[in-house]
Amino acid sequence: MPDLLLALDYGGTKLSAALSGPHTTPDTGWLNLRRAFSPPGATATYDQRTMLELAREIISAHGQPAALGVSFGGPVDFSRGLVRLSHHVPGWENTSLADQLEAVFRVPVRVDNDANVAALGEASFGAGRGLSSLMYLTISTGVGGGWIIDGRPWRGSGGLAGEIGHLTVDPEGPLCLCGKRGCVERYASGPYMAEDARQMILDTPERGRALLDLVDGRVEAVTSKTLSQAADLGDPLARQVLERGAWALGTGIGNAANLFNPQAFILGGGVTKAGDFWWQALRKCAHQTALPEVEFEILPAELGDDAPLWGAVKLAQEALLEGGVKAQP
Amino acid sequence: MPDLLLALDYGGTKLSAALSGPHTTPDTGWLNLRRAFSPPGATATYDQRTMLELAREIISAHGQPAALGVSFGGPVDFSRGLVRLSHHVPGWENTSLADQLEAVFRVPVRVDNDANVAALGEASFGAGRGLSSLMYLTISTGVGGGWIIDGRPWRGSGGLAGEIGHLTVDPEGPLCLCGKRGCVERYASGPYMAEDARQMILDTPERGRALLDLVDGRVEAVTSKTLSQAADLGDPLARQVLERGAWALGTGIGNAANLFNPQAFILGGGVTKAGDFWWQALRKCAHQTALPEVEFEILPAELGDDAPLWGAVKLAQEALLEGGVKAQP
Repeated sequence: MPDLLLALDYGGTKLSAALSGPHTTPDTGWLNLRRAFSPPGATATYDQRTMLELAREIISAHGQPAALGVSFGGPVDFSRGLVRLSHHVPGWENTSLADQLEAVFRVPVRVDNDANVAALGEASFGAGRGLSSLMYLTISTGVGGGWIIDGRPWRGSGGLAGEIGHLTVDPEGPLCLCGKRGCVERYASGPYMAEDARQMILDTPERGRALLDLVDGRVEAVTSKTLSQAADLGDPLARQVLERGAWALGTGIGNAANLFNPQAFILGGGVTKAGDFWWQALRKCAHQTALPEVEFEILPAELGDDAPLWGAVKLAQEALLEGGVKAQP
Repeated sequence: MPDLLLALDYGGTKLSAALSGPHTTPDTGWLNLRRAFSPPGATATYDQRTMLELAREIISAHGQPAALGVSFGGPVDFSRGLVRLSHHVPGWENTSLADQLEAVFRVPVRVDNDANVAALGEASFGAGRGLSSLMYLTISTGVGGGWIIDGRPWRGSGGLAGEIGHLTVDPEGPLCLCGKRGCVERYASGPYMAEDARQMILDTPERGRALLDLVDGRVEAVTSKTLSQAADLGDPLARQVLERGAWALGTGIGNAANLFNPQAFILGGGVTKAGDFWWQALRKCAHQTALPEVEFEILPAELGDDAPLWGAVKLAQEALLEGGVKAQP
């Protein structure tokens, strides 16, 4: 019987389990995919129980997997398969998730955080196929990323590589939640762009007329999505905010290119749906920030919300070849 | 007979050749070391001939080496052993240096640029012994660096990784030679710090009294070295310039730590002799720029000007194990 691989994705608000066979690709689709939303107030215990139910439904229909790959939405000690904590769901502190899943399924398991796993997914099955060095970035409620170097994930000495959201791009810039000034994330994340637009619209409502119309005059309803729509309509205020976000992100990417010279940056997350205006501003700034001889591409991610699941398949393949949690990182 | 390894360093103004045996370390010293200065007006042909003379002197005294490692002061295509050009010496454009040396010495040869080779030297024999991930930085007439990731050099997809000197740290900052504004190098290199001090002293000579005394009132004689001496004497202007250089470099290092999370940054080059004042400002700014959970050390380099020669020994060891220029990068 061919090897089945089980991919699990513990998102902050959503749980997904999918099964792949030897010929499964994003084009063929999964052998089986189950999702469940994590309700407000969910705990680690609830999420664990729900995920096991999803997995057992899949297994009862298709048979036992030969290995598991797991994406977790929060900091993970990869070498020990240990979840450090979740920023969304209480009760995950220092959970030996790989050990627990190995005890249940009796096959090798590998666990990593969602940014690293999504990078692996895009590199193996998505926009990064055929590339050996890239950074994957997600630009949504936060800005984070993961590296693939020499075809393998580079997690950093403490598992913290990829924090491009907290690159300083303007030392005099506005205060970020992290306590520093002028971080990429402070300008470029969806919530911060919406916050900046709401503030600017109070000062100069005439510049955000199209944006205000889109939200029926309710300033508090402005989101990064309505910002993008207003920018498409030519709204000057919306364009200014999106352009500033693209400038900050482009500066971060150009600086990362100078430092690390990867082949490509692959961008996913809700903000990347902002349209051509945003992509053009971003690409221009990134290439202006990088030295002229430093070449790279900036590509849209191809796997959408499923990038962590596809990366988990790759983790499961590695677990099968090299062993699970106890394998060397 | 034990393996002898020949290390060559083509600096911009200096040529060095050294021979190591199986037990050679920075503590024991070289089996043999020869140096020659490259006079003003020297060409690639002159430097090549001189270097071959140094190498032959060494070989006639000790015997044939089993492999060669070469550091070159300029951009190199490592996988082909090809020197792209020298910024100091004319005539080096697209020179197949590894092929030429393999034809002369009939042993495997590996060639890389001086920043990468110095990083390898410090990682193998210097301040980075025992570490598996680090960035080596040289802060002198320019600011550049090289990476060691997972114990191996990471050169970048186009061989351009490590350009920390051209990280933008202030988008409104002064113009850099590269054409961008507010680069690390524009604040932190020796010549730029001296230039800034000379400008400031014209505006506010009373703040640079100690500095002016040190150069007998000849503003044009201010260098980064006299700046350091004046800062040690408490000169406010000198301290301001050095502090700004340390701030820019610290911002670059903190950002690199957020992006890549290496264990350490190892700093060499003339500016690092600026004293405790500079090191303290640098460390403070680097750790303030990095996220609190991102840990790293900032260490002074241990091998001084010989870091490229020691790295060349490591390259020669690899050439011996894996083959020379034709080996996979």
